[in-house]
Amino acid sequence: MRLYDCSTAPSPRRVRMFIAEKGISVDTVQVDLASGEQHGDAFAAINPHRTVPVLQLDDGSCLTTTGGICHYLERQFPQPPLIGRDAAEHGLIVDLVSHIEQDGYLAIAEAFRNKARSFSRNALTGAQQYEQIPELVERGRSRTGHFFVWLDQTLQNKTYLAGDAFSMADISAFIAVEFSAWIKVPVPDSCSALLEWRDRISERPSAGA
Amino acid sequence: MRLYDCSTAPSPRRVRMFIAEKGISVDTVQVDLASGEQHGDAFAAINPHRTVPVLQLDDGSCLTTTGGICHYLERQFPQPPLIGRDAAEHGLIVDLVSHIEQDGYLAIAEAFRNKARSFSRNALTGAQQYEQIPELVERGRSRTGHFFVWLDQTLQNKTYLAGDAFSMADISAFIAVEFSAWIKVPVPDSCSALLEWRDRISERPSAGA
Repeated sequence: MRLYDCSTAPSPRRVRMFIAEKGISVDTVQVDLASGEQHGDAFAAINPHRTVPVLQLDDGSCLTTTGGICHYLERQFPQPPLIGRDAAEHGLIVDLVSHIEQDGYLAIAEAFRNKARSFSRNALTGAQQYEQIPELVERGRSRTGHFFVWLDQTLQNKTYLAGDAFSMADISAFIAVEFSAWIKVPVPDSCSALLEWRDRISERPSAGA
Repeated sequence: MRLYDCSTAPSPRRVRMFIAEKGISVDTVQVDLASGEQHGDAFAAINPHRTVPVLQLDDGSCLTTTGGICHYLERQFPQPPLIGRDAAEHGLIVDLVSHIEQDGYLAIAEAFRNKARSFSRNALTGAQQYEQIPELVERGRSRTGHFFVWLDQTLQNKTYLAGDAFSMADISAFIAVEFSAWIKVPVPDSCSALLEWRDRISERPSAGA
């Protein structure tokens, strides 16, 4: 197994934190997104979507999304379970991660990539070029604020997002909240459950992965 | 178990087709999206995200995404497997579904919801109101065209998207291709593998679910 990674990007960090929680080690190759290495022929042959993370399996096949990689690792290395201990918890964690990706990561990326000069022709990740649309900056910032409120409500009277067990939902949400610093939308003080949970997660050794 | 459904919408159709392939039956309640029933207090208490599908479990808890619902059902009713027979196939199917949701459903929804008059203040699904952004119509149509090409390339020399076994990836992609009719972006004749696969999937009894 080999992980194509970028140490500064949020999505591969989700995989690194997942791997750290599993207590396994995986060979890692850094892809320099800042210089556009993902658009070169060598990397496009590995992942035509031109994104990281990518997990290359021993047969040479590649998984090219955070979800695909984490679900594969969960089956191969079941302990400790990070995507649910039974059917209901499994469904709940997949549910939470889906909301975190759609209402968190995509919202933050919308605000960030439609503003930053270096993404002027790459407002979306992937192989195709799309121009920035300025209206999406404010929409993304607004959505990020609602995302924080939803996380805070979900965390009321809970230790972790899915209940009493740490999971992939916590990894995904924690790194989304860290990613939101890129657009300078802070978690409001009124979201006290979210702020306490963030402190709790940041103390795990895997948070430094 | 109870499924909150809308017979005309693409996302709940993915769950209905998944259920039909599993050969199980689930009580269904229709939610009238056209009249805005999802924004009423009764439904918002069931799902604050105000979307369908929702699967309410026997303990009253609710799964509110297609992914969460299908992963729950896969664990509860493992036969026939629709999300992989081993770790590598499981990872691959989750990977494919992630691309289909991000590059297919979101692209088509972007083109559709930013144009249709009835969505003038609801350009995104969910509880929050966002105005339409006209530039997203063309961007969504362009992305949909690239989505078709990717599906066609993925289907080269394969019976199904993940290889030789029908899966949740086929369900998700088939209904995304049907959904693309809403924005009148046809699958080009050059995508012959995709067109043949579509015909093959449409012959399954579950395609009518």
